[in-house]
Amino acid sequence: MKKLINDPAAVVSEALDGMALAHGELIKVQKDPAFIMRADGPVKGKVAILSGGGSGHEPMHGGFVGRGMLDAACPGAVFTSPTPDQMLEATKAIDGGAGVLHIVKNYTGDIMNFEMAADLAKGEGIQVESVVINDDVAVKDSLYTAGRRGVATTVLAEKICGGAAEAGKSLHEVAELCHRVNSNGRTMGMALTACTVPHAGKPSFELADDEMEIGIGIHGEPGRRREKIQPADKIVEMLMEPILDDLPFMAGHDVLLFVNGMGGTPMIELYILFRKAHELAVKRGLNVKRHLVGSYITSLEMAGASITLLKLDAEMTKYWDAPVVTPALRWGA
Amino acid sequence: MKKLINDPAAVVSEALDGMALAHGELIKVQKDPAFIMRADGPVKGKVAILSGGGSGHEPMHGGFVGRGMLDAACPGAVFTSPTPDQMLEATKAIDGGAGVLHIVKNYTGDIMNFEMAADLAKGEGIQVESVVINDDVAVKDSLYTAGRRGVATTVLAEKICGGAAEAGKSLHEVAELCHRVNSNGRTMGMALTACTVPHAGKPSFELADDEMEIGIGIHGEPGRRREKIQPADKIVEMLMEPILDDLPFMAGHDVLLFVNGMGGTPMIELYILFRKAHELAVKRGLNVKRHLVGSYITSLEMAGASITLLKLDAEMTKYWDAPVVTPALRWGA
Repeated sequence: MKKLINDPAAVVSEALDGMALAHGELIKVQKDPAFIMRADGPVKGKVAILSGGGSGHEPMHGGFVGRGMLDAACPGAVFTSPTPDQMLEATKAIDGGAGVLHIVKNYTGDIMNFEMAADLAKGEGIQVESVVINDDVAVKDSLYTAGRRGVATTVLAEKICGGAAEAGKSLHEVAELCHRVNSNGRTMGMALTACTVPHAGKPSFELADDEMEIGIGIHGEPGRRREKIQPADKIVEMLMEPILDDLPFMAGHDVLLFVNGMGGTPMIELYILFRKAHELAVKRGLNVKRHLVGSYITSLEMAGASITLLKLDAEMTKYWDAPVVTPALRWGA
Repeated sequence: MKKLINDPAAVVSEALDGMALAHGELIKVQKDPAFIMRADGPVKGKVAILSGGGSGHEPMHGGFVGRGMLDAACPGAVFTSPTPDQMLEATKAIDGGAGVLHIVKNYTGDIMNFEMAADLAKGEGIQVESVVINDDVAVKDSLYTAGRRGVATTVLAEKICGGAAEAGKSLHEVAELCHRVNSNGRTMGMALTACTVPHAGKPSFELADDEMEIGIGIHGEPGRRREKIQPADKIVEMLMEPILDDLPFMAGHDVLLFVNGMGGTPMIELYILFRKAHELAVKRGLNVKRHLVGSYITSLEMAGASITLLKLDAEMTKYWDAPVVTPALRWGA
């Protein structure tokens, strides 16, 4: 296992220490239980947004904590759901009196623990609403999921809902917007290589030198099929077709196109993919009004990429454009 | 070779097309000869800044084009110097009448071609000054260099000089500042894996499963030594010691600490390195006033990292903090 780590058991804790030192002006890091919250939180009167999940997907979610996006993020062990006590303490810490939205990726452990945390928080008098993201068109059920997995649309939902919360929308309004983002976002991913979970010490699966996995999840869980590597343009077609077929994307629709790297993919390759994905979207008559290119929801060092299309409405566009100041996404302020 | 590309010969051109589509509000891409320039350039009366070098180090340099940083960047083929005609055309396109600073990483091809371009531009009546970055403490001479290689301090120099140019400093002042950044910046890098240049089709070197290369350059050129992998904290010590010994970093000095990923290194590992590097800097009595953590000057998909320390003065700090709006670095505006 080739990794820049010390003790596999200390990976998340040491990375949190590094984040705290690197981004102290934006975030504060709590331990026991662990969560990352806005340095200036809780923000009185504002709806607070909490997300979280296994570590190893950085910058998601901790890198998205800050003004205009998340109020807190709970990091689990690598590829392991955080615990209800993390979520409960984070919920209490960020509640500014206007309630807390939990944005939850559809994985069995995350769902179960966020539900328990929401119940406990409600028991303490905090308003909580939860929205589950399940945007992955690759598979119906998966190794860790009943139903579709929650993947890259989560980044878009966190940004857009963060903007709405900052603008003073109510908990119900922000939750409704989050549902709408999820309903209008579709993602599919692929991998050229596996990744290695530190405490496992070996790759989570094997791909031959000339093979790729189409429809992979963000934990390296199996996708639709394994096949010989193809040129980038062909791969983009394989990812875009199921996305375009799944939602009634129609000529004239405004969309946000998000090409995401899985961690070990150079920027130069992501731009090659974006170019082709853009071309295919335009060919369908879609208006690519907004875009994001980079490694924002990753699987450790996995080489691969995902493509997300989000059908935009005016409100989503407005809150996508709103200022954001986090370690990993920053604009307009 | 596992890459998300089409024709190896088209990698740079297709990636440029993708960049143009993704960042059209910030940059415009020219072809024949190829360069990336500010969408709103040339900026009349402002000193313009040009950099460039082989592709494969993204986001450097194209991702740093925009307000508050570079006016243009010339991308060569992967790991290959751009040509004098690219540099000349870019210099002419961005000159706003106040002259052009060329920021050049110390590689033989880059030096030669930038010199030729500067001479040609001067022949056409444009004021040009050139500053060579040579911050790598790992080796005295290298495979592609007489003297030290130019590596991650380049990112810092481009940001700081970009801020100074935006603030209306003269060509001479911006060049002097760039020299000062270079004189006060020191870097050392390491790799866990090699990378594969697309047109070569195989890794540029071989490292055994339990080996790392200490002191590596950004093209995978050999470093100081090859040895067994060590824990992250030990690796940070190996990188920090030569840096701290090379410059008279003294207790009480303000520094910028930059932990850079080589392309295939997860953020979680970079934060683990940052944590230890910060601790060692503080132990020396240094005041870590500014920081940067991320993959900004890369070697395709190479797994590894570099550490840079820049001794800050008040002017450098001021222009580091100044607003920047580029595809890869963005704050304050």
